[in-house]
Amino acid sequence: MILDLLSQHGALSRTELAWRTGYSRAKIGAAVQSLIERRILEEVGDDESRGGRRARLLNFSSSIGYIFGVDVGATSVDIALSDFTGRILQRFDAPADVRDGPDVLLGMIKDQMLTMLQNAGLMPDQIHGIGIGVPGPVEFSTGLLIAPPIMPGWEAFPIREYFNRVFPQAIVIVDNDVNVMALGELRRGKNINAQNFIFIKIGTGIGCGIVCQGKIYRGSSGCAGDVGHICVDYNGPICHCGNRGCVEAMAAGPAIAAKAMQAAREGRSPILQQLMESNNGVLTAKDVGIAAARGDRVSIGLIQESGKLIGEMLAGVVNFFNPSLILIGGGVSNIGYQLLSSIRQAVLARSLPLSTRDLRIEYNSLRGEAGIYGAIYLALEHIFTTLATPGIDDED
Amino acid sequence: MILDLLSQHGALSRTELAWRTGYSRAKIGAAVQSLIERRILEEVGDDESRGGRRARLLNFSSSIGYIFGVDVGATSVDIALSDFTGRILQRFDAPADVRDGPDVLLGMIKDQMLTMLQNAGLMPDQIHGIGIGVPGPVEFSTGLLIAPPIMPGWEAFPIREYFNRVFPQAIVIVDNDVNVMALGELRRGKNINAQNFIFIKIGTGIGCGIVCQGKIYRGSSGCAGDVGHICVDYNGPICHCGNRGCVEAMAAGPAIAAKAMQAAREGRSPILQQLMESNNGVLTAKDVGIAAARGDRVSIGLIQESGKLIGEMLAGVVNFFNPSLILIGGGVSNIGYQLLSSIRQAVLARSLPLSTRDLRIEYNSLRGEAGIYGAIYLALEHIFTTLATPGIDDED
Repeated sequence: MILDLLSQHGALSRTELAWRTGYSRAKIGAAVQSLIERRILEEVGDDESRGGRRARLLNFSSSIGYIFGVDVGATSVDIALSDFTGRILQRFDAPADVRDGPDVLLGMIKDQMLTMLQNAGLMPDQIHGIGIGVPGPVEFSTGLLIAPPIMPGWEAFPIREYFNRVFPQAIVIVDNDVNVMALGELRRGKNINAQNFIFIKIGTGIGCGIVCQGKIYRGSSGCAGDVGHICVDYNGPICHCGNRGCVEAMAAGPAIAAKAMQAAREGRSPILQQLMESNNGVLTAKDVGIAAARGDRVSIGLIQESGKLIGEMLAGVVNFFNPSLILIGGGVSNIGYQLLSSIRQAVLARSLPLSTRDLRIEYNSLRGEAGIYGAIYLALEHIFTTLATPGIDDED
Repeated sequence: MILDLLSQHGALSRTELAWRTGYSRAKIGAAVQSLIERRILEEVGDDESRGGRRARLLNFSSSIGYIFGVDVGATSVDIALSDFTGRILQRFDAPADVRDGPDVLLGMIKDQMLTMLQNAGLMPDQIHGIGIGVPGPVEFSTGLLIAPPIMPGWEAFPIREYFNRVFPQAIVIVDNDVNVMALGELRRGKNINAQNFIFIKIGTGIGCGIVCQGKIYRGSSGCAGDVGHICVDYNGPICHCGNRGCVEAMAAGPAIAAKAMQAAREGRSPILQQLMESNNGVLTAKDVGIAAARGDRVSIGLIQESGKLIGEMLAGVVNFFNPSLILIGGGVSNIGYQLLSSIRQAVLARSLPLSTRDLRIEYNSLRGEAGIYGAIYLALEHIFTTLATPGIDDED
C-alpha cells in the first residue's frame, strides 16, 4: 500500500502515509524503516507544505531502478522509460506492423530501449520492470499470445524470455492491450472515481477491459472482456469466429468501411465516392469520419448504426455487471460525436433504469495515452507486489 | 480470517489456524488471545487427532449467540436457527404468499422465530444476526426493496427495523434471493472450487448472482446480475419492462406455461390438453415438466427452446465475464434434463473456445437448500467483519 501510494502521489511523509492507509503512525514507521533498510525507499527532503515541525518526505530510492512501458498496436509501437513513480523520462513512438512478426518487431523495440538507456546514462540491469500491451489474447500467467487473429506469427512466442536476456533484472509482464488501457485509466485517468468500470476499445475489433473492485479482472481463463463476439443480431452476417451477428462483425472499423464502400459504389454518397477514388478504391473507418464531419448523411447514418449496435451489446453488459462508468476508446472511437451519443441512447433504451441511474458513458480521458501509462503500471504493480513480500525470490 | 475459518471448519487449534492463514504462530496467538478476552472465542478441548503435545482447540464461545436465516420465496418461507458455525439447530418451512404484504408475512416469521427460541430455551437478545433473502431487487446498503415487481407492498418497507425491535442485538441483512443462493453455494456447495462463478435462478423470472474473486459482486447500484432483461431476440415479444425479446419474457416459467397452453388449445399435445382440463384450464411450467417426463414431444421442444434462449443469453455473459462455473437453480430448473443440455449446447455454440475451455455448467449442488444456507452466511459474514474491527460499534 505504501509503495502504491508513493507511486500515485509522489513523495509523502510518514504522517501522510499513516493517514492515507488508515494504519497507525507506529506501524507505518516500522514498515517504512524496513523498506529503507532494503534500499527500496529513501528520505528525500522535508515537507514544507505545513506549519509546525517539518516531516521528512519519503520516496523511492534513486538507486532502485526504472521501468519500460511498451504499447504495441497493430500498426504502431510506443515505448516509454519511466521511474518508479510512473513519471515518463523518455518517450519513443513509430509506425510498425505487427505482421512483421516478433523477431523483427521485438528486435526493433529492444534496440530502441538500449538507445534510450544510453541517452539517459543508464545500464540494462537498472531496468526492473517491463510492461507490454499487445493487440491479441494473452495467457496472463505465462505472458504468451494464444491464437492471436491479427498477429499469427506471435503465437506462443516467449516475449518474457526475449527481454530477460537483455534486461536480466526486469520482471516482464505481457497483457492484452485493452486490459492495459483500462489499467492506465484506473491509475492515471481523470475523474475516474469508480471501482467497477469497463473500457471498450473500438478498432479493427471490439474488446473490453474490466475493472472490478478496483482491480483488473481477467476471468478464469484470462479472456474476460471478449465482448466483440456477443451477438446483436441472430440473423446477422457470419463473423470470422463462425457465428452470426457478432457485434464486432457488424460495428467495428472494417464493417463500417465495408458498408461505406458499398454506399460509394451504389452512388448513395458523392463524398464517400470521391474519397474512395482518391484512395485507390479503398475506404477506411477514418474516411467515414471525414465524410461525416463534412455533413455526409450516409456516413453519419453508418456511425449511428455502429453506435446503436455497440450500445445494444453494452446494454446486456450493463444489466449483468452494473458498472458506474463505461469508457469508450480505441482508434475508431474518434470517428464522430454521433458514435458516443448513439451508444448512450441504445444503452439507456435497453438497460434497466436502476442499473443506468448512476452510469456515466464517456470517451476515455487519456485518449491514446491510456496504453502507455497502463503498460508502465502493469510492471510497477507487479514489482510492488513482489517487493511487499520479502520472502519471494526476484525470479518468481 | 480466523472467524471465517472456524465458521467453515469448526473447532481448530492455533497451529492449524496459523497454517491455514499463512500468518505466524505468534501473530495468530495474539489475535486469538484478543478474541478470547472479548469472549468471542473459547477453548473447547484438546485436539486428539495428532501425536505429541496436545493442542487446545478453539471455537466460538457458547455464550456468543445464534443466527436466524430466512429464505422468503414467492410462495413459501423457510426459517433456520443456526449457531456461529452455520450448523442448523431448528428449521421451519411453510407455504406463504409474499403478496400478503410485509405486515402479515414478517409477523408470521417473527412469531415463528420466537417459538423456535422458546423450543431451544434461548432469549431474543441471544440472536446476533438475521440474514434474509427476498425475491425482489434490494438496495443492499439500506436493506430496502426497490420497486419489487412481484411484491409491490414491500417497497421501501423497513425490514431491518422491524426485526431489530424484537431482536435488539441482531445485525439484520437483507439481500436479493439469487445473491443469497450464490453465497450459500460459495460457502456450503459441493465441488465449487471456483473464485468466479455465477448462479442462474430460473423461475417466474430469470436472475443471476455473481461471485467475483471469492465474493458476492453487487455492482455499482447493487443491481448486478439482472440478466432477465438481456435481449435474445430484437424482434421478440414485448416484455413487462417495455423492451422486446428479453430472455425472461421468452424463456422463464410463465413463458413456458403460456406456450404450453397455446399448444394444448391448438390440439398439438394430447397430454398437455388433458393436464390443462384436469387443472381448470390452466398449465404451469411444472405441468410441462410432467408431460415431458411422459415423453410429450411438444413439451420437450418447449423445454429445449427455453434452454437454447437462456444459453444464448449466457453465451454473452461468458464472453464478458469468463467464469469457470455456471450453476443453474430455481424452481423451473427442475423441469427436465433437456433444459441443462440445451443451455450447455447454446453456450458452447456461441461462446469463444478459450472462454469455455474450463467452464462447467451444472445444477446447483444444494438445490432448494442454497437459499437458507446463504441467508445464514449473509448474517455470519457481516458479523465477522464487525467483530474483526474492534472499534466499530455494534449498531453500525
